[in-house]
Amino acid sequence: MEREFHRWLKQDSRQAPRQRSRAVADLQATAEASLVAVGIGDDAAVLRFWGDAASNGDRAGIVLTTDAIAEGTHFDLSKHSLQLVGRKSLAVNLSDLAAMGAEPVAALLTLMIPRRFSLADVQEIFIGCQTLATEFNLEIVGGDTNSWDGPLLVSVTAIGRTIENAMPAKSAALAFFNNLASENVWRMDQAQAGDAIVVSGCFGGSIHGHHLSFQPRVALARYLISRYKIHAATDASDSLSFDLSAMAAASNDGEGLGVEIEIDMIPISAAAQMDADDATALNRALTDGEDFELILAMENSVWEVLQNDPQLPCSLTRIGCFVEGNGFRLLHPDGRLEKFQPRGYSH
Amino acid sequence: MEREFHRWLKQDSRQAPRQRSRAVADLQATAEASLVAVGIGDDAAVLRFWGDAASNGDRAGIVLTTDAIAEGTHFDLSKHSLQLVGRKSLAVNLSDLAAMGAEPVAALLTLMIPRRFSLADVQEIFIGCQTLATEFNLEIVGGDTNSWDGPLLVSVTAIGRTIENAMPAKSAALAFFNNLASENVWRMDQAQAGDAIVVSGCFGGSIHGHHLSFQPRVALARYLISRYKIHAATDASDSLSFDLSAMAAASNDGEGLGVEIEIDMIPISAAAQMDADDATALNRALTDGEDFELILAMENSVWEVLQNDPQLPCSLTRIGCFVEGNGFRLLHPDGRLEKFQPRGYSH
Repeated sequence: MEREFHRWLKQDSRQAPRQRSRAVADLQATAEASLVAVGIGDDAAVLRFWGDAASNGDRAGIVLTTDAIAEGTHFDLSKHSLQLVGRKSLAVNLSDLAAMGAEPVAALLTLMIPRRFSLADVQEIFIGCQTLATEFNLEIVGGDTNSWDGPLLVSVTAIGRTIENAMPAKSAALAFFNNLASENVWRMDQAQAGDAIVVSGCFGGSIHGHHLSFQPRVALARYLISRYKIHAATDASDSLSFDLSAMAAASNDGEGLGVEIEIDMIPISAAAQMDADDATALNRALTDGEDFELILAMENSVWEVLQNDPQLPCSLTRIGCFVEGNGFRLLHPDGRLEKFQPRGYSH
Repeated sequence: MEREFHRWLKQDSRQAPRQRSRAVADLQATAEASLVAVGIGDDAAVLRFWGDAASNGDRAGIVLTTDAIAEGTHFDLSKHSLQLVGRKSLAVNLSDLAAMGAEPVAALLTLMIPRRFSLADVQEIFIGCQTLATEFNLEIVGGDTNSWDGPLLVSVTAIGRTIENAMPAKSAALAFFNNLASENVWRMDQAQAGDAIVVSGCFGGSIHGHHLSFQPRVALARYLISRYKIHAATDASDSLSFDLSAMAAASNDGEGLGVEIEIDMIPISAAAQMDADDATALNRALTDGEDFELILAMENSVWEVLQNDPQLPCSLTRIGCFVEGNGFRLLHPDGRLEKFQPRGYSH
């Protein structure tokens, strides 16, 4: 039902541009024209209303994302500590900021607390969230706390900023790339046919612990966005195959692209390989949820430079490429192409 | 329990300033010094990280607030339509932005949906929220939707911006006032002894419908902040007496101020007067929740000008003043001062 609702939302916003109060619209005509750089449908929204044509302010933006985690769906209080729950509530949002190439700045924390909880319980959740916030140098600046008869819900809004491309261009080529990065955020819908598909970390078996303890790829995003021309990015929250196919489907002005994955290149986590033959482990890597790794689209020439960069904050792997057309295919070592139906975790 | 938690939060942030990762702290030293203009404890948080000392950018800020409304606590689905629920979820947040003197810009909408709900139900909530957003010229730029086994929860994060004091000063006195408004937001803790207490609209009996249909005081805030020197503001969500006493307690560097209310000046709503003698109606006006009117602190000389302004977007009433010391007192027409215990709706 969530996916139906999202489809309706996107359709609605295309077909019926909101009517605005005339008086206010007149007052704000200039600002409005460029207010929302990225709206519903990406990992986060981007606002650029502080843009100032006289300076380079049009490259600065505010990046906003919100994600809620719920008892029974995203965590199990019989197994997971409240500190880890608090940590995860912020981490999933930081993953979305990283997927936009944005720098975390602040967060708001909303708690819906079962009446059986004590003050110490609520403090545990906050401490888990605050510890990760401290690690990533952002501040929890507000929120809302309510007791109620429902299950525990932790909802976070994370606020980031776009990262100025502050490095002096060391070469004409780099200066060219910088100029191309007009928004200085990574949308998910800008992959191009022929682009390499590059992923961070490894995939599958997140349920065994990674979904609570993962490091959101903020450092990687910060490193890449100021140095490399990335066409598009998202994070794998539903699954590698599901989020990658969503990226492909949204690209090419919504006409979509095809995906070809080299199966022997997919980095499979140790957790996915536990008690599993190769086919099962591969399937887990492609379809398990909550890996929270980045999926990036870039020209092969960029990948050639990137893969030899000794300062990368984490491992990156080229697992395939975007192609003209549609469909998700697995390329076997013997050259055989197999059609694959992307699946993922549906919340 | 919520109030205990908030006390702990404020104490925690005073006693243990967050340790920050050294490397990042060094990188961002300048920005950090002035990142959070207003943090936990006010109606909204204010970030000013785009401040640019070279321009007047230090007067621009991002205002962030989040409030959740829950089935059973804030609305009753057996009586209230889903459109009104959607409307209220945004309206309560716009009220917080108005209480900061901020202009709404965008919102994020998080929905926790009971499994019995249809797509049409979810659309109704969205339409209620979107209709109010259109009226106030802001965009819903993102959110999160999940089905679950809990009750309906609608959580909104509203994003505003501080309003530049763009009017040319028409007099030396006004220019002086403008310069005093260094942050250009209304904190709740800056009331001063001797200040007039001024409120918008009228109070009490909100449960009979106002809590769903109220107009957040955005137009009033927009009008006042660019023209008048207001010392402090908040919105009456818990109750007139409760929120006013919170404002008084937070002021004077946390030492607190006293409050004296002229009881025959309190604007009492028709709903509060229904089936009630004068004392009951007065009590409702002082203690009922969810009026969502503004409570303002300003010098009496400002009020003298303001009360004769023919362009005010809504009625304003001076109901009393802040005084040295502590305590909440009602001033009867015969000059008698009566101690009053502020009470309000506790969520």
